[in-house]
Amino acid sequence: MAELSMNDHKRPFKDYPAHHFKWECSDDGRVATITLNRPDKKNPLTFDSYAELRNLFRDLTYASDVRTVVIQGAGNNFCSGGDVFEIIEPLTKMSMPELLEFTRMTGDLVKAMRRAPQQIVAAIDGICAGAGAMLALAADFRLGTPETKTAYLFTRVGLAGADMGACGLLPRMIGQGRATELLMTGRAMSADEGLAWGFFSALHPSADLLGQAQKIARNLADGPWFAHTVTKTMINQEWAMGVEEMIESEAQAQAICMMTGDFRRAFEAFASKQKPKFEGN
Amino acid sequence: MAELSMNDHKRPFKDYPAHHFKWECSDDGRVATITLNRPDKKNPLTFDSYAELRNLFRDLTYASDVRTVVIQGAGNNFCSGGDVFEIIEPLTKMSMPELLEFTRMTGDLVKAMRRAPQQIVAAIDGICAGAGAMLALAADFRLGTPETKTAYLFTRVGLAGADMGACGLLPRMIGQGRATELLMTGRAMSADEGLAWGFFSALHPSADLLGQAQKIARNLADGPWFAHTVTKTMINQEWAMGVEEMIESEAQAQAICMMTGDFRRAFEAFASKQKPKFEGN
Amino acid sequence: MAELSMNDHKRPFKDYPAHHFKWECSDDGRVATITLNRPDKKNPLTFDSYAELRNLFRDLTYASDVRTVVIQGAGNNFCSGGDVFEIIEPLTKMSMPELLEFTRMTGDLVKAMRRAPQQIVAAIDGICAGAGAMLALAADFRLGTPETKTAYLFTRVGLAGADMGACGLLPRMIGQGRATELLMTGRAMSADEGLAWGFFSALHPSADLLGQAQKIARNLADGPWFAHTVTKTMINQEWAMGVEEMIESEAQAQAICMMTGDFRRAFEAFASKQKPKFEGN
Repeated sequence: MAELSMNDHKRPFKDYPAHHFKWECSDDGRVATITLNRPDKKNPLTFDSYAELRNLFRDLTYASDVRTVVIQGAGNNFCSGGDVFEIIEPLTKMSMPELLEFTRMTGDLVKAMRRAPQQIVAAIDGICAGAGAMLALAADFRLGTPETKTAYLFTRVGLAGADMGACGLLPRMIGQGRATELLMTGRAMSADEGLAWGFFSALHPSADLLGQAQKIARNLADGPWFAHTVTKTMINQEWAMGVEEMIESEAQAQAICMMTGDFRRAFEAFASKQKPKFEGN
Repeated sequence: MAELSMNDHKRPFKDYPAHHFKWECSDDGRVATITLNRPDKKNPLTFDSYAELRNLFRDLTYASDVRTVVIQGAGNNFCSGGDVFEIIEPLTKMSMPELLEFTRMTGDLVKAMRRAPQQIVAAIDGICAGAGAMLALAADFRLGTPETKTAYLFTRVGLAGADMGACGLLPRMIGQGRATELLMTGRAMSADEGLAWGFFSALHPSADLLGQAQKIARNLADGPWFAHTVTKTMINQEWAMGVEEMIESEAQAQAICMMTGDFRRAFEAFASKQKPKFEGN
Repeated sequence: MAELSMNDHKRPFKDYPAHHFKWECSDDGRVATITLNRPDKKNPLTFDSYAELRNLFRDLTYASDVRTVVIQGAGNNFCSGGDVFEIIEPLTKMSMPELLEFTRMTGDLVKAMRRAPQQIVAAIDGICAGAGAMLALAADFRLGTPETKTAYLFTRVGLAGADMGACGLLPRMIGQGRATELLMTGRAMSADEGLAWGFFSALHPSADLLGQAQKIARNLADGPWFAHTVTKTMINQEWAMGVEEMIESEAQAQAICMMTGDFRRAFEAFASKQKPKFEGN
C-alpha cells in the first residue's frame, strides 16, 4: 500500500490557471508575477478577484516551485481598490452576516499574504488605493515610482480606516501619527512621503519598476529561502510579544535554520573563499 | 411609565461650564475648542484643570453634539505641564496612596482622551512640556509651528519618563530609539524633528495654527464621523494584537460601518456623480 | 547572628576582571566602558566573549557603582559579529540541543542588556554587523560616525533575520518595512539612513565618538538614575500592552519615583532657583 508523504501535497504552480489576474512565472518557476489586469479601470478588485487572490495565496503554502511573488498592476497603475459598482453597490444592500462574510474574505486575503511562505514584492506605480493600498501594505517589500499615490480612502465612502488590518499594520510601518492622518482623512500619501516614512524601500522610474521588483524577488528566491520564510514568520508574530518571549522565540527559530544545508554551505563557501550557493533548504 | 432610551443619556455640550480652561463650540456644536488659558505661566496644569479635563473627556462619550475637539494654549504656548508650586510641591509631601491617586488621575486623562469618540486635534505652539506633551501625544492629530518645542521633561524633576503612558505611546509614534532619547534626557524635540519623525502632521505659522486645526476638525466632524470613531478605537487597540486577531477585529468593525447610512449615501452620491453628504450615522 | 541585608549582595564593579574585552571605569565607578578588543579582525564575538558579556550584564544588576555603560569597538570598527571559524564552523556540526543552547546564550545577552538597570550607550564606528548589530540594537542609545555601516547579515550565512530578537526589536526602532528589507536582504544600512530612520540619535566624527558617548553616559549617571532605570523598564514592557494597561502601569511606576529623594531635591532646587543635584535615589 502506497504511503502518502507530506511532499505529495506539494505541486508546481507554474501553470496555475488564474482567471481574474495575470499569472506568469520565471522559467524555473521560482519567481511568479501577478498582474492586476483591468487597466481601463485602474485594476479594481471584484468579488471574484478578491476570492481568487485569497485562494492563490492560501494554496501557495503548498507550492513546490514558487518562492517569491511580484505583484503589479497593468497600465501604470497598481490598483484602484474595490470596484464601486461591482463591490460597493452590492455591499450597500447586504445583511450583516453577508457583510461579515465579505469583510472576512478581504481580510483573509491579507492573512493569506502574511502567512504565505513566499516573500511578496509589490511594484506600485500610479494609483494605489483602498484595498489596493492594503495589498501593498500586506507585501514584504514595496517599490514605487515618483508618480505613485497611495490612499487609504475607505473614509471617502463613509467607512472606517479599519479595513483588512490597516489600523494595525499601517502604524507598524509608518508610525501611529502618520497612520492616523492617512486613515482618518483618506488623503493620498505622495511617493516622496512614502519613501521618507519607510513605506517604500525605493522609488524607480516606471520603466524600471517591474525589473527592479523582479530583481529583488529573484535574489530572495535564489538565496537562503527557507530562512527567509522564517524571517517573515517572526516579523509577523513578534509585535505582540514581550522582549523575553520574542528572544526565546528567535532562539528556537534560528536553531531550526542552523540545521539547514544552506547554513552549512554558506560556511563552506566562506572557508574556501567562494560565493555561497543557496538551495533554499 | 416613561421608558428610558439610550439617547436620554446624550446631551448637548455646547454650553459645558468649564472653569479651568476655555471651552468654545462652533455654532452647530460639532467642533469644540479647548484653550488652556493661563498664558502668563504658559498654561500649566493644576489638580483642578487635570480633573476637569478628565471629566470633560469622559463625559464627551455622551455628547449629542460635539464630534471633534481642538486643544490649544493661549498666548503662543501650548502647555508647560504640571505647575511646580501647585502640583510638584504638594506631591513631594504625599503618601504613596495619595501619589497613586494623582498618577492615576493624570493617566485617566490620557485614557479618557484615547477613549473619547471625538477626534482630538492638538494645535501646538511654543512650549509643549511634561504633561502638556502628553496631552499632545494623546491627541489624534498634532499641528505645530516652527517655534514649537516639545519636551518630555519628567526626568528634569527627578522622575521617570513613564508618565501618563509616555513609554508606551511615544515609541509607537516616533520609534523606540528616538523615544528613549527624549524620555531619558528630557531634551526638547524641535519642530523640524517632530515633523520629520511623524509627531506633527504639519507645521504652520502661529497666526494660521488654530484655523488649520479647526479646519481638520471641521472636515472630520462633517465627514463619516461614526466611521472615524471606529478608526480611532481600532488604532487604539490593535498594537497589542497578533496579525490574525487584528484582521478579524477589523472585519467585524468594518461590517458595522457598512450598515451605516453614510456608506449608502456615499455610494449613491458617487453613482449620481455628486459629492457625498455625510451625516455621521 | 549577623543578618544578611539586600545590600550585602551589591558590590563594586570598578575592577571587574574581564578577559575577553576591555573593561574600564570612570574614577567614581559610575560610567563603565566596554571595548571589544580584537581590532585586527574587527572585534568579532566568540563563544567566550558572548558568555562573558552575558554574565557581565546579568551581574550588573547587583552593581553598587556602575550606572551607565558605554560599549565600543577598538580600531574604528564596532563589531563584525560572530567569528566565522570560532563560531560559525562549530555551529555547522552541532546537534539541535547544542544549537538551542547557543541561540539561547546569545539571546540571553540581549535579554541581559535590556534587563540591566544601567543605560547602555553604543558608540558605533565602522563595521557593525550580525551579532554586533544586535548589541547596537539592544543598547538604549546609539551614536554613529559617517563611516558606520550596520548590517543584519544573518541571511548572508544562510540564516534567518530572526536572531537575538532582531525581528521584534528592529521594527520597533525603524518600522516594519525598513526592518524587513534589512533583515531579508542583509544589506548594510548607511550612517545617514540610520540617522534618518531613528536608529542613531546622532553622528559624530570618529575622533569625537567615544567622548560624546561618555558624555551622554555621564549625564545619565549623574542624573536621577533610579528614575532612568524605571524608564528603561517601562519602555521594555509596554509595547505588548494595551493603552489602558500601559497607563495603569505607569501610574504605579511614576508613583514609586515620586517617593525618591531625587524628586524632592529637584523641587527644592527649583524653588531656591538652583540647579538640582541628583543622587540617583
